[in-house]
Amino acid sequence: MRGAVIHAPGDIRFETLDDPKILKPTDAIIRTAVTCVCGSDLWPYRGAEPTDAAHPMGHEYVGFVEEVGSEVTSVKPGQFVVGSFATSDNTCANCRNGFQSSCLNREFMSTCQADHVRIPNAQGTLVATDDIPDERFWPGLLAVSDVLGTGWWAAEAAQVKPGSTAVVVGDGAVGLCAVIAAKELGAERIIAMSRHESRRKLALEFGATDIVAERGDEGVARIKDLTGGIGADSVLECVGTAESMRQALHSARPGGNVGFVGVPHEVAIDGQELFFSQAGLHGGPAPVRRYLPDLIDLVLSGRIDPGKVFDLTLPLDQVAEGYQAMDERRAIKALLRP
Amino acid sequence: MRGAVIHAPGDIRFETLDDPKILKPTDAIIRTAVTCVCGSDLWPYRGAEPTDAAHPMGHEYVGFVEEVGSEVTSVKPGQFVVGSFATSDNTCANCRNGFQSSCLNREFMSTCQADHVRIPNAQGTLVATDDIPDERFWPGLLAVSDVLGTGWWAAEAAQVKPGSTAVVVGDGAVGLCAVIAAKELGAERIIAMSRHESRRKLALEFGATDIVAERGDEGVARIKDLTGGIGADSVLECVGTAESMRQALHSARPGGNVGFVGVPHEVAIDGQELFFSQAGLHGGPAPVRRYLPDLIDLVLSGRIDPGKVFDLTLPLDQVAEGYQAMDERRAIKALLRP
Repeated sequence: MRGAVIHAPGDIRFETLDDPKILKPTDAIIRTAVTCVCGSDLWPYRGAEPTDAAHPMGHEYVGFVEEVGSEVTSVKPGQFVVGSFATSDNTCANCRNGFQSSCLNREFMSTCQADHVRIPNAQGTLVATDDIPDERFWPGLLAVSDVLGTGWWAAEAAQVKPGSTAVVVGDGAVGLCAVIAAKELGAERIIAMSRHESRRKLALEFGATDIVAERGDEGVARIKDLTGGIGADSVLECVGTAESMRQALHSARPGGNVGFVGVPHEVAIDGQELFFSQAGLHGGPAPVRRYLPDLIDLVLSGRIDPGKVFDLTLPLDQVAEGYQAMDERRAIKALLRP
Repeated sequence: MRGAVIHAPGDIRFETLDDPKILKPTDAIIRTAVTCVCGSDLWPYRGAEPTDAAHPMGHEYVGFVEEVGSEVTSVKPGQFVVGSFATSDNTCANCRNGFQSSCLNREFMSTCQADHVRIPNAQGTLVATDDIPDERFWPGLLAVSDVLGTGWWAAEAAQVKPGSTAVVVGDGAVGLCAVIAAKELGAERIIAMSRHESRRKLALEFGATDIVAERGDEGVARIKDLTGGIGADSVLECVGTAESMRQALHSARPGGNVGFVGVPHEVAIDGQELFFSQAGLHGGPAPVRRYLPDLIDLVLSGRIDPGKVFDLTLPLDQVAEGYQAMDERRAIKALLRP
């Protein structure tokens, strides 16, 4: 098979690799329908996370089941399946609590920018669609497997409620999907923080009611202006830098909540500052598996189209260009077709 | 009038001071029924907070209204009233959201270890009882005005639900009151972390089902043992040190919640650690005013008796001994009678 391998920051190669095999009776092998490049893939690409040795990349996928291990009965060869970047057995205590992304047997996916992928914990991780969906739905279902699920968790963790005001920090694919989630959960006012024309446009299309271009203290001041001086009920932090986290915390009202889903990089939160802000803070890897059935339905029913975050489509063998386009912010998110 | 003044760490004096006066039409003057020493008073007493100039002390009080400003209509002279350490107008946007401790006109109380006290924002802050309560209820009502309200907020912020498992970190008066709150909110299992015999006994009397004496990593390991390996649904952090906060965060299960009410001192929370713990975190000064009507009823009906946290009663003029006894952990909490 062939897939993407990172050798060093900025150095993504498309290479021939060993075909994936069933290693455990709980595994499945899928043939990738579509995959993509994630904003979080840019951390090692930009050298913000170390690359000690060359390794495959990618954790987003939808595809066709080719083979299943002896203990996998929930999906079968030929079916179209959607999964999550965090695999889960869906039976352990954390899974039963709805936090499958902290499954006691969790394995994070990391080899999905390839034409074939081994899925650990396949029984608990994969959800098959009733029929093979029309190709026009594939990008939306691919978004479900990570960026929409993550935006949804941001909205849930920020306790978005009907009639509330939500601020979305970050205009990447996750932030844009967080706008969809905030709208679906009933937010009356959705303020998207963005200064990029194409992203602002998509945020408005997804349901944002206001756009704030300012950042940092100026951005916070604008949010306060728009929220009667006290801040927003819910803030969805979809970046993960110290600046974005500070902006998010300062944008929430006392008693409001910040959902943070950007993996924090060099972020330290001062306990006393958090205390006196009286804002709640909840984040982590999104429990996508819990949301899959509902989000798949929302996409296949045509109610939402998170697939619009893919504004660049490339053949899988041009994966390196996908990284570069996203790194240079020429693309929001690059879809890859094997 | 006479009241307590701190001159330097360890130096509390009972002095003659100017009688309090109505300064604003929203003020009231009360004659103190009972007051007390708070765990947070020990921060400056121990030098962990600076004392640049001598100043009065105390923020907990119940008493009799003596005089009200021209805009105060909700209480009248002669009534017995309960308030909060954070005064609030009870009309601003934050108050309407139920976060009166972040009232836009908030003034923190700081002169209550005295026989008379000026209460700013009296209209929004003070709640009068229907009749003058029997003296045996005064300690309980005094606890309502701070430590019980704060423990209640810890339980609410930690999202204690019927049937859930709650851990209480801290066996001071707030921690012990947090046990009461967790029980009233329906926790099925309440694990109190304590190594002091008298406090453990009171925790059990208040509703704790388990006691854990270990601290730090050992304490966390014991909590994991008691919670099927994953941690507790809710953790109520009632101390405010870096160690207690770390212990609290590590004791919560993925998707669980930490309510933190000990004012954090030199606490920095690592963003990535919080992210992967998947625990929620919410704290701040307790919105006691929101709880007052219900908590007063719980005390006067005899359903709960948070007044038991006072295991030392002194005449007000011996306030310095109250500080010393609490500092040396000879007393959980010292009640002062003018």
